[in-house]
Amino acid sequence: MKQVENELLILSVDAERYLELIRREEFPELGKIVVPDSPGDGEEGWENCNIILGDPDLTLPRLPYMKRLGWVQSTWAGVAPFMGENLRKDYQLTGVKGVFGPLMSEYVFCYMLMHEQKASARRAATKKGVWDDTVPGSLKGKLVGIMGVGSIGSHVAATAKYFGMNTRGYTRSDASCPHIDRYFHGNSLSRFASGLDYLVCLLPHVSEMDNAIDLGVLGAMNRNALLINGGRGNAVNDGDLVAALEGGMIGGAVLDVFREEPLPGEHPFWTTPNLTVTAHTAALSRPEDIIALFRENCRNYVGGRELNCLIDFKRGY
Amino acid sequence: MKQVENELLILSVDAERYLELIRREEFPELGKIVVPDSPGDGEEGWENCNIILGDPDLTLPRLPYMKRLGWVQSTWAGVAPFMGENLRKDYQLTGVKGVFGPLMSEYVFCYMLMHEQKASARRAATKKGVWDDTVPGSLKGKLVGIMGVGSIGSHVAATAKYFGMNTRGYTRSDASCPHIDRYFHGNSLSRFASGLDYLVCLLPHVSEMDNAIDLGVLGAMNRNALLINGGRGNAVNDGDLVAALEGGMIGGAVLDVFREEPLPGEHPFWTTPNLTVTAHTAALSRPEDIIALFRENCRNYVGGRELNCLIDFKRGY
Repeated sequence: MKQVENELLILSVDAERYLELIRREEFPELGKIVVPDSPGDGEEGWENCNIILGDPDLTLPRLPYMKRLGWVQSTWAGVAPFMGENLRKDYQLTGVKGVFGPLMSEYVFCYMLMHEQKASARRAATKKGVWDDTVPGSLKGKLVGIMGVGSIGSHVAATAKYFGMNTRGYTRSDASCPHIDRYFHGNSLSRFASGLDYLVCLLPHVSEMDNAIDLGVLGAMNRNALLINGGRGNAVNDGDLVAALEGGMIGGAVLDVFREEPLPGEHPFWTTPNLTVTAHTAALSRPEDIIALFRENCRNYVGGRELNCLIDFKRGY
Repeated sequence: MKQVENELLILSVDAERYLELIRREEFPELGKIVVPDSPGDGEEGWENCNIILGDPDLTLPRLPYMKRLGWVQSTWAGVAPFMGENLRKDYQLTGVKGVFGPLMSEYVFCYMLMHEQKASARRAATKKGVWDDTVPGSLKGKLVGIMGVGSIGSHVAATAKYFGMNTRGYTRSDASCPHIDRYFHGNSLSRFASGLDYLVCLLPHVSEMDNAIDLGVLGAMNRNALLINGGRGNAVNDGDLVAALEGGMIGGAVLDVFREEPLPGEHPFWTTPNLTVTAHTAALSRPEDIIALFRENCRNYVGGRELNCLIDFKRGY
């Protein structure tokens, strides 16, 4: 039986770093490694590689030309770009799980704690020389609702429990996270949102959730509530959020994702009160974390075993 | 045998709230309850009370006049005011433990996460309409040193471990917290500080630690390090900290405690770069939390059992 040679194509802004990590750890499963535009490697024969380790935006344009593609390991958690109707789906696509949960928890709890501590106001008071003895709040006993309780959402729920919070989860059907006190599904979104102190959206890009976070949802939350979107921009109705913040319906919003990124200069979010824009930096891929996952999947792939974090092209995640 | 009647004197800015909580929970151990300046209660016979539930600043002036004082439950974690040389010490003094750890963790990790996320810069970028895609840092793998690892410091150490940090502890002698990787004592303070990303001071007011955080300690930390003082103001050498921040020796400081509070208007801290002043609000006593401790100690006191959180007048904590 002839052994198929495994050849890896690396397509990433962090390609050099990936190459360095792969060479350090030794990957006996891999024959040739191709890194386009890399000095000394060149890109000859890239179409013949059967494995891609790639950033989605750099991988997509080459996808149609791959002659014997077997497996793509995405370097991003968001694999929506691969779902496009006209794209080939005759290969195994794997995402990234278990890596972004802790990073997303750091992002989410930074802004939740700032909200309780009134940290921005205290910083401003320092600059004005004012002794601001306003009593801070506490996360303990507060209610957080998490939309999308996959591996990232589960970690955020665990962190919420660490801080003594009460937790709700909104998912399509899954209800398996032990850190969620109560699950909601389907058309119960406004009941899910009712009385929330925090709404954390971690949904992937699913079109059924387009504009799901609208005036109905925002109005159901507490008046001082904070919305954090670390999922995808389409879940928020932009106009409704602007109206809710301008009208004081909720206390604030922190958004990491938008319908168009970078957020266009003329977008009203830039001037909406109590709204913080972060530049899709909440849970960035770090090659050190991704490579550990790739290492294990490489062994699985060559051994003919099931891959970790395999994406279902029908569900889109 | 004649039963000694237990009479409670409440001396607190939150006295009304304490009274309400005590009446709700029923304290059959207590006979009379005296709340000075409270409508309907008056302060007749306050000198005859044998138990005080009190804020230290309001309790001290009455201490000499108490005729049969047996026990004082402080409502603050900081009991230094009771240590004064000329004050009586012929009674049992209990402090507050287990309550402030979670609150202090919220304070400390708010500012540590803000430091990693560069949250203030991102807020400023939003206001300027700038898409700031600077990569955030992560607490994971960072090194925190905690000075004073009692019940509060242990909780902060546990939270550091939750976020994947490495931990050092500096204590007089105790080395019992399982969340501290490595302990330091005595004159090893600059070795303790060497290479720290975060220094969290949670020391009570002990005169041996006067000015302990000086240029030597600050210079041993990493260049981007953040100092957080949630203990007592005397541990920091004010002039050295100003010099370290002005010279870019460390990345920033967040101070909740000062030699004089409120911090005087002319103090250089108000205008020192990268320094945030908070107004001794990091871990405020909340009557709901204190009363649970008082409830249990009341049973212990009447039953002749050892009190929880008993203060050693010799050590001062």
